[in-house]
Amino acid sequence: MPGRYTVGEQMCPHRLVVEHVTSRWGVLVLIELLDRPYRFSELRRAIGRVSEKMLAQTLQTLERDGLIHRDAKPVIPPRVDYSLTGLGREAAEQVRALALWTERRMDEVQKAREAYDARKGAAELG
Amino acid sequence: MPGRYTVGEQMCPHRLVVEHVTSRWGVLVLIELLDRPYRFSELRRAIGRVSEKMLAQTLQTLERDGLIHRDAKPVIPPRVDYSLTGLGREAAEQVRALALWTERRMDEVQKAREAYDARKGAAELG
Repeated sequence: MPGRYTVGEQMCPHRLVVEHVTSRWGVLVLIELLDRPYRFSELRRAIGRVSEKMLAQTLQTLERDGLIHRDAKPVIPPRVDYSLTGLGREAAEQVRALALWTERRMDEVQKAREAYDARKGAAELG
Repeated sequence: MPGRYTVGEQMCPHRLVVEHVTSRWGVLVLIELLDRPYRFSELRRAIGRVSEKMLAQTLQTLERDGLIHRDAKPVIPPRVDYSLTGLGREAAEQVRALALWTERRMDEVQKAREAYDARKGAAELG
């Protein structure tokens, strides 16, 4: 029973971490940071379409989980760099593998959806 | 730039698949089915705390994505078995790896959260 331990009440604390690292912006932030550290504005440009507020929240959540290191340099103008911690790199690699897998298999998923919808349509007509 | 391709507009179709396989019940269903095929009621007992409606929706979504095979046997009383497809097994293995990782690292995440909250608390007092 390889999955038994994650099932039921014990799942809850891990559940939040899964949600953080697989959230829409969490995935993108982690994957970007696998490359190199980023400043906030750079990261926002790299990801695109993310509001300042959402990106700030995502970074804060991942920082609190110990996945991202926030390095605020005491210079003028202020400079803040974000990078992966060791823990964050592990998470990012898992998440990237999953993202790569979905990309690689998207055609098959798409075909399955079309076949499913055709079956459902036929069943409704029949 | 290993992450570049997933960023921006192209991310959208994959995004939904990531959401399906990492959803609260999606994760648990996929992990359970790595073991063996399950009947609906068995699966519901194995997962626990999931409503019939939510489990049915989760299974339908994963079936439509081509990850789960639904085998309705024409017997009385009706018997429906759910199993992973080849594609579903790949997804389930990724998701299990992520779930295992979060379990293994939960203590570190917890410590990071406490340290973060302590820093924030100190910053607010200072």
